[in-house]
Amino acid sequence: MLTDIQIAQGCKMLHIKKIAEKLGIAEEDLEYYGNYKAKLSEGLWDKVKDRKDGRLVLVTAINPTPAGEGKTTTTVGLGQAMSKIGKNAVIALREPSLGPVMGIKGGAAGGGYAQVVPMEDINLHFTGDMHAITAANNLLSAAIDNHLQQGNSLNLDPRQIVWKRCMDMNDRALRNVIVGLGGKMNGMPREDGFNITVASEIMAILCLASDITDLKQRLGRVITGYTFTGQPVTASQLKVDGAMTLLLKDAIKPNLVQTLEGTPAIMHGGPFANIAHGCNSVTATKLALKLADYVITEAGFGADLGAEKFFDIKCRFASLKPDAVVLVATIRALKYNGGIKKENLKEENLPALALGFANAEKHIENLKQFGVPVLVAINHFETDTDAEIQLVRERCTALGVKVAFSDVFLNGGQGGVELAEKLVEVTDSTVSNFAPIYDSELPIKEKIKAIVTKIYGGNAVIYTAAAEKSIVKIEEMGLDKMPVCMAKTQYSLSDNPLLLGRPSGFDVTVREVRISAGAGFIVALTGDIMTMPGLPKVPAAEKIDINENGVITGLF
Amino acid sequence: MLTDIQIAQGCKMLHIKKIAEKLGIAEEDLEYYGNYKAKLSEGLWDKVKDRKDGRLVLVTAINPTPAGEGKTTTTVGLGQAMSKIGKNAVIALREPSLGPVMGIKGGAAGGGYAQVVPMEDINLHFTGDMHAITAANNLLSAAIDNHLQQGNSLNLDPRQIVWKRCMDMNDRALRNVIVGLGGKMNGMPREDGFNITVASEIMAILCLASDITDLKQRLGRVITGYTFTGQPVTASQLKVDGAMTLLLKDAIKPNLVQTLEGTPAIMHGGPFANIAHGCNSVTATKLALKLADYVITEAGFGADLGAEKFFDIKCRFASLKPDAVVLVATIRALKYNGGIKKENLKEENLPALALGFANAEKHIENLKQFGVPVLVAINHFETDTDAEIQLVRERCTALGVKVAFSDVFLNGGQGGVELAEKLVEVTDSTVSNFAPIYDSELPIKEKIKAIVTKIYGGNAVIYTAAAEKSIVKIEEMGLDKMPVCMAKTQYSLSDNPLLLGRPSGFDVTVREVRISAGAGFIVALTGDIMTMPGLPKVPAAEKIDINENGVITGLF
Repeated sequence: MLTDIQIAQGCKMLHIKKIAEKLGIAEEDLEYYGNYKAKLSEGLWDKVKDRKDGRLVLVTAINPTPAGEGKTTTTVGLGQAMSKIGKNAVIALREPSLGPVMGIKGGAAGGGYAQVVPMEDINLHFTGDMHAITAANNLLSAAIDNHLQQGNSLNLDPRQIVWKRCMDMNDRALRNVIVGLGGKMNGMPREDGFNITVASEIMAILCLASDITDLKQRLGRVITGYTFTGQPVTASQLKVDGAMTLLLKDAIKPNLVQTLEGTPAIMHGGPFANIAHGCNSVTATKLALKLADYVITEAGFGADLGAEKFFDIKCRFASLKPDAVVLVATIRALKYNGGIKKENLKEENLPALALGFANAEKHIENLKQFGVPVLVAINHFETDTDAEIQLVRERCTALGVKVAFSDVFLNGGQGGVELAEKLVEVTDSTVSNFAPIYDSELPIKEKIKAIVTKIYGGNAVIYTAAAEKSIVKIEEMGLDKMPVCMAKTQYSLSDNPLLLGRPSGFDVTVREVRISAGAGFIVALTGDIMTMPGLPKVPAAEKIDINENGVITGLF
Repeated sequence: MLTDIQIAQGCKMLHIKKIAEKLGIAEEDLEYYGNYKAKLSEGLWDKVKDRKDGRLVLVTAINPTPAGEGKTTTTVGLGQAMSKIGKNAVIALREPSLGPVMGIKGGAAGGGYAQVVPMEDINLHFTGDMHAITAANNLLSAAIDNHLQQGNSLNLDPRQIVWKRCMDMNDRALRNVIVGLGGKMNGMPREDGFNITVASEIMAILCLASDITDLKQRLGRVITGYTFTGQPVTASQLKVDGAMTLLLKDAIKPNLVQTLEGTPAIMHGGPFANIAHGCNSVTATKLALKLADYVITEAGFGADLGAEKFFDIKCRFASLKPDAVVLVATIRALKYNGGIKKENLKEENLPALALGFANAEKHIENLKQFGVPVLVAINHFETDTDAEIQLVRERCTALGVKVAFSDVFLNGGQGGVELAEKLVEVTDSTVSNFAPIYDSELPIKEKIKAIVTKIYGGNAVIYTAAAEKSIVKIEEMGLDKMPVCMAKTQYSLSDNPLLLGRPSGFDVTVREVRISAGAGFIVALTGDIMTMPGLPKVPAAEKIDINENGVITGLF
């Protein structure tokens, strides 16, 4: 089989204006970035805002395993399949980060015959959104250090600066740094660190802002650090909220691209799914709902993190009402959850599959708690046996949910026709009664408890002394009425990555609580969360090349 | 009078395809970035390369003063004036850096009625070239630190790493940093620092590379540091030259924009004019020469640095043959060179003007040494008196050079008609006998001596012990046959910024010598050269804003 990039390079793309036409977008509302990428103008929203919304479909997954689930591939393939069965659909995805492209093979543009193109551009600089976020983030950092240098009239405590610099690179050496060395003319020495750009609060803000005015207000509320007397110092106090907004004036506009089969895809924003909420932008999703009958979107990691935050943070803020959820799994991954090692997943194992299915079962129950109709998508592999397929169908039927098998990786949209048809059935026949799982007005600990007990299936929540202290501080600042963004391992429903399947009887330890005042959520960290990846022994960058004819190799 | 940004916002821009039409560029060779910016395709060069070159005109200036000379404004205005008198002209400029935009008011897109537009975009992210350079630079840094972390098989000495990270920001706190703190999992601690992006060797490389193959080879030759036994370690040894090239695949394509009057302008690249060569890209200039009868370009700082490097580095590498040089001055700046303080420049002062003219005189002599016809452009201010104007005309005539007064800032192209007409006269009547001022095969010290004695008008060159040692090292590595890039104060012909006018009898001290093996030049540093600016007490960023209707204020 061809590699992803070979398939992508073999695709005869349509000019992006032809893709826009499918969504009824006139050329005047496109800002071209070459022939195959465009930003959608600010004016487009005003033209379409009074239309009826299309149906909003979230694609999520069981807990990730080394076996692979194919969530993005299924999302793209489902979008293609919707077109195949004659439905007007648009895909709303996150845009990938450059850092990991240079680190470990893998991207966020789908795979096989279910990809978004032009994949090289999408995985490199795309339309510059990441770079704009990096610039805005680092302008704020420069303003902080300049404030210290120029007399520190706000009395900012250099030991209590919480705003980090960022870079869209996998670079562990930047995790912990000392800046401002070299004497009086070169700044005030202090500890600092870099996040990867997608982990910057600016990314979360960009994805949650409803328009440029809201964007500026959120940027202004960002807490950069605390004074010697413990008062927060915000970006607006440093007076760079206007300049940061200007740096993001194009980044806030959603990007239009296409799938291998010419289905429109809006890619916009891509916040981390641990310390942030892990889904594409509110502006993109709201616009997409006005442009098509079905909007297929996804969220990061498994449903315990991605779907929960999509519902409790994004949908809550944006008043979105999802119409259905597609839960992606593979028989391989379910067997892995049933205790089978990666190298033995090719063999039929019905007991392990039955055991591992408990993971999917819990996610299905969780999604139902949100009041949204659920459909299970099994990303089909050739090693799946008839008996295994039969078992999964029976278990889903017993739970009262529809299940569809798809092989969009190999067969593109055609491979997702069963899934698309069942999705239409579900949304035609079932009414969504969506509601968040907790009231954001509740005390912080009650919000966390709701997530841990109702979604993770855990018992108690244990707080470290540092976490307790932070909660008190957030309450004192009057910022406690915000939703909670859980930073937890993606590999387990619990906070222990080794507990697969459907763990029970566990407690969750909250080690640290932070406030993202600009984004508008409280971050509860369980375990160590890495916000700046490193490069592996042999980085993907070593194999990446472009020749004299512009042919790119090694990218995927 | 309106501000620059108000004038720019009042401009009714033409769609960039209309600008391209003026240069005979078909739509298929444009890669749009919105409606008013485009990259020129790789294929365009192949279509035009066999055409006869147009005339190449360099705009340079006397030594910069606080009075202002208006070099970029004159360059843009001259381009507009050439169109006014019916000549087919294109302007070839450097693209501005974002950092200073946030620091001190000022940009690199001209001023008044002689500007390049869309000025907001040009001064912000433009087409992403700077961000691509930042990414390529920092990928190499990440590869260096990852190499140290993963076993250091190349035996790279962490104390001898010369490659710095970069950021397009004015941020003094990043000048000297320690990276890799936090223990074994977070890298090897070492000293590092950040340059502003335009000071990265990648920028110089991008501007000197003839095509993507040459770009990759140059990137591969970049010296990142030295082993414990003193051997250089290059980017190609770290195997990221291919990935760096890929990150620059779009950045290497020149950008097309327009002036306020619709004259085509190609803006591409913008290396520092001290530790690098300070002019736009070779690819842009060579392409421009195939597209128009007159190419108006500029170089950084005064003629002693900008023009010298344009001739001795860029023209040498690219086999360019400049047809004329325009030397820009103002009567105010000449009087400043004659010892008058900034606050008294409005008053007529013929003796001071006569004294200060010596600065222009030396630059005129220098430019003639290169064998290129010279034309003096006086950027006219309303405080210039008739007697002062008369004096300048007489002095120029006595030197056998033509002089023209222009007021393009106030009157756009119409204000530059005399200048444009005289430029045509000069290029029609005088043949250029261009040759570099030194042979690059000479020993390093002889090359430096040629520049110091012939161009600066100095006596001897003094070398510090460190500089002597570096010269020996460069000779040992066999890299000494490259041109020399002087890093010197821009404010004086000497290495002392306080010596105005036409200093003589001075020595020049070379404190440090570096090798930019990828760019292909040897850098001789005289005095402290800052490669990462800081923000002032009240940064421009504090006044920059964008409102809910997208109206930008405070940018200029």
